This record gives sequence, C-alpha cells and structure tokens, in this order.
Amino acid sequence: MRHLASIIVALLAAAWALSLPFPAATAADIVAAPTGVTIPKGYRNWQVVAPSQRDDKDEIRVILGNNIAMRAFRAKRLPFPDGAILAKLAWKRVASAEFDNTFVPDEPQRVEFMEKNAKKYAATGGWGFGRFVNGKPADEAQHGTCWPCHEANVKGNDFVFTKYAR
Amino acid sequence: MRHLASIIVALLAAAWALSLPFPAATAADIVAAPTGVTIPKGYRNWQVVAPSQRDDKDEIRVILGNNIAMRAFRAKRLPFPDGAILAKLAWKRVASAEFDNTFVPDEPQRVEFMEKNAKKYAATGGWGFGRFVNGKPADEAQHGTCWPCHEANVKGNDFVFTKYAR
Repeated sequence: MRHLASIIVALLAAAWALSLPFPAATAADIVAAPTGVTIPKGYRNWQVVAPSQRDDKDEIRVILGNNIAMRAFRAKRLPFPDGAILAKLAWKRVASAEFDNTFVPDEPQRVEFMEKNAKKYAATGGWGFGRFVNGKPADEAQHGTCWPCHEANVKGNDFVFTKYAR
Repeated sequence: MRHLASIIVALLAAAWALSLPFPAATAADIVAAPTGVTIPKGYRNWQVVAPSQRDDKDEIRVILGNNIAMRAFRAKRLPFPDGAILAKLAWKRVASAEFDNTFVPDEPQRVEFMEKNAKKYAATGGWGFGRFVNGKPADEAQHGTCWPCHEANVKGNDFVFTKYAR
C-alpha cells in the first residue's frame, strides 16, 4: 500500500514536471544572488518592455517583464506592485553578416533582475536586484552598485530606468 | 423566450470580449497590406526572438514571434511551418536622459510582419510580408522591396534574417 502511494506520488511529480515550459530546476540549480534574488523560471518567455543599446559596452539588450510588471507598465501605475519582476538580457553586439549598418546580438553577457517586494527589500526602494553571468550570481561588491545608481537617477519612476516602448 | 435567448447571447458575447487581451477589432479596423497580410491580434505580447539596431536609420528594433515561430526557433527547425509569424517593431532611438552611452526607443516608426503560408505565398518563399505605419499598410511599391532582399540575403535561413538570441 505504501509502495502504491509512492508510485502515485512519483507519477504526479512526473506529470507536473512534464507540464513545465522548462526542465524543473533541482535545489542545486537554484542559486541566489547575495540579495536573495534568484533567476525566475521562464523569464525568457516574458513580454517586452523595451530594447536598448549600451554603446560603451558594445551591447544590445532587451528588458522583459512578468505579467504583474507588464500590467503596471500598461496601466502607467507607479509604484510597481509586489511581485513585479523585470529582466534585462544583455548580449555583446555584432554587425549583421547579411545586412549593412545593422547590429544584432552575439554572445550573452549577463541577465539581471529587479524584483519588487516592498517589505523584504525596504532598504533598496522595495526592489531586490540580481545579476547573473552564465547562470551564476555576481559577487556582493557588484550587487552593491545597483541600488545607488537606480536611486540617484530614476527615483521619480519608482527606481526603474526602462519605459514601456509603445 | 426569444428575448431571453438574445440576452444570453449578448452576455456571452460581452464575456468573450472582456476576456480578450485587446479590444476586439471591428471589420473596419482590419486593413490588409497589398500582400494580404494583416496585423495579427496581440502581437505586442509575443515572445522575443532578438533585438537589433539599424544605425543608418537611427533605429532600435525588437523582433517577436508567435508561438509557432518560437517553437521552430527553439527547435532550430527550418523551414518554418505554416502559421509562423514574425513581427519587427522599429522605433527611432534616442539617448537616455538618465544613463550615459545608452539609447532607448523613442517614437514608433513601423511594424512589419512575415507570415508563413507555403501555398498562399508560394511566389515569395512561402512568406507574406506586411509593413504598417501608424496601423496603416504601406503601398505596393514598398511591399515590392521585401522579398527581393530576403531572397538575396538569407535564402539559407528560410529567408529570415533574425536569429534567436540565447
């Protein structure tokens, strides 16, 4: 009887895992940034807030948002509600081999997240910041640079640089 | 009795309309490009294939794909199956007011679509091309320029310029 129960649990777990858009992360896969921010599951499938380019780093980027963030952007609602997450995906850019004057993404450089939780991240405007390179979190020193820059430059936009591209 | 049926139909229609992510288009809203391509509903919510920048036009872009297109990109499956649609959203770019060396989207310039239907668009590689400015289709002369350029430059990639940005 206990054996049958184990089989049922295993089957349910397998069905759940198969229903996920991505392979289920094992505990060992989930690595937190020093801020506690982790890589949100399925973020590559989120909707676009806007693209951007950073010339001094020779990078092209796209900023995505989860559903909570996108709803707030579209409703022009500030501050962002708890649960809103933004993702910035940055690639080295390279000239297109097929079209003149055009630059396209080359190697991925890093993925960064801003996660709203007014209580948990009260000391940093309600936002938790996370930077990951090749799936591994950057160190504490790097994470210490996020908040001062957001605080200094975009206080009036709930500390978010990116505007929704209509 | 007939009155009651009308009310039920009206309520169901209202419930359906409210469930849509965007206001339902009326027949008058739907304008086709000379190729027959129309603006697909909800394309702004599609997933990202890649961002790009076009320096001679001072533009920044993002290329999105519907679910059929995204599945093909991720499976690296060519040619794209019927029903795949790509959307290119292009904005004039402007220097960020808050961050040095960074460019962000300003005014939208145009939205373009590539819609795969091997039979319907057999004369142009199975792709229907559509260009829209402010929701209005560009003229026939402009549409005549799409296919020759895609044919000449990206035949080996099923006539698609954009690669999936990992």
